[in-house]
Amino acid sequence: MRYLMTFSYDGTNYYGYQKQPSKITIQGVLETALTKINKNIDVVVHSSGRTDSKVHALNQSAHFDLDININEEKLKRALNGLINKDIYIKKIVKVNDDFHARYNVVKKEYIYKMNIGEYNPIEKNYIYQYNKNIDIKKMKKAIKYLKGTHNFKAFTKFDNQKETDFIRTIYNVKINKNKNELILYFIGNGFLRYMVRNLVGTLIDIGEGKKSPLDIKYILESEDRKKAGKTANPEGLYLSKVYY
Amino acid sequence: MRYLMTFSYDGTNYYGYQKQPSKITIQGVLETALTKINKNIDVVVHSSGRTDSKVHALNQSAHFDLDININEEKLKRALNGLINKDIYIKKIVKVNDDFHARYNVVKKEYIYKMNIGEYNPIEKNYIYQYNKNIDIKKMKKAIKYLKGTHNFKAFTKFDNQKETDFIRTIYNVKINKNKNELILYFIGNGFLRYMVRNLVGTLIDIGEGKKSPLDIKYILESEDRKKAGKTANPEGLYLSKVYY
Repeated sequence: MRYLMTFSYDGTNYYGYQKQPSKITIQGVLETALTKINKNIDVVVHSSGRTDSKVHALNQSAHFDLDININEEKLKRALNGLINKDIYIKKIVKVNDDFHARYNVVKKEYIYKMNIGEYNPIEKNYIYQYNKNIDIKKMKKAIKYLKGTHNFKAFTKFDNQKETDFIRTIYNVKINKNKNELILYFIGNGFLRYMVRNLVGTLIDIGEGKKSPLDIKYILESEDRKKAGKTANPEGLYLSKVYY
Repeated sequence: MRYLMTFSYDGTNYYGYQKQPSKITIQGVLETALTKINKNIDVVVHSSGRTDSKVHALNQSAHFDLDININEEKLKRALNGLINKDIYIKKIVKVNDDFHARYNVVKKEYIYKMNIGEYNPIEKNYIYQYNKNIDIKKMKKAIKYLKGTHNFKAFTKFDNQKETDFIRTIYNVKINKNKNELILYFIGNGFLRYMVRNLVGTLIDIGEGKKSPLDIKYILESEDRKKAGKTANPEGLYLSKVYY
């Protein structure tokens, strides 16, 4: 029986989503609990994609197979009862055996939060504490060059060896300001490792006047990671929606 | 030279504001740093009042005396450089030698945040995860009985031996709702130990229909802690403003 679950998590104290030996990860916690529910027959959780250490999720998705047939609402309660308070299962539904949480993704949304006001200790693990003024108009000029289908090699991890295809489509990027909080939205058919944080780091360079809005177009075309900005801090990043 | 500082803190990992031997406290961290700045002559920090373990502050106030004369902006930078990321010094000003951060308080504001929607792991240390519906109208009816000058013995700690005067004046109480977040504001000339959290616990009982709005008046008059509701969780509470 295949199940699809939607869940949120606070990534602050985790070594990211993906399972790693002897390190606490989101996938590790979920698999341990689901294996217990599955009468100790190993369960593998397949997510829509990984998130890095300290990155959060508002709505992550994953599928898994159980050897037992259990009501979705009961399974949700059992699973929430077995995991800790950093992860919350919002919804579980039964799906067809050919459904895959990663391969069937149509669209994903990430958001990035940054505080351009005074440092706030309450937010330190959930909003990037930039704590300076920034030219939002310039950032908004730059984001229009990101929309569409591009090779995003310049914006992925330096040594991204695993990836062979760097072409992704960004459907929309927008920047909202709410008091001293900037929220950047990235909606696309998929994102390479570090891609959102490298885009944010480059947009910050543009907002600071170190690069011009048009530079982002040239950086894309260069396919050269060294031309892009720094990888922005992980704590401001949220996987916010996965569409199937 | 006497200084008054305004500061914010994330109380999650602290045993409260007040210094305790071999436990991490806000006062302890501040005094260690200030003593270092004061060329290792002990500095005592006098706050507007203590906050309990896991309770936060948006604007706490405290005064202290230094044996050295140092520019306020420079002192602020030095102090922020010596303390950790859980505490942030927002402002330091020189004050007269007869100023006292506790005795000169005219008015204080506390806020209490609760999530009446779905559990959210991102907020778990900063907003009380009530995660159920509640009758806000009933709570709003009850708060009007709190305004004014009353004996609040029924709403303090069970064994509050230290206190001899339980009379306090509440100038205003209000409840705002923003999506699934309830924010309760309490403004008064002073608050007894656990008073805000016991008021919130009682207002929750009223919102759940376990008590009526008018009961809060009778509980006040009874001066009996056993008649009031439970002490609400600490993580939703913020000392938000201190007026002199």
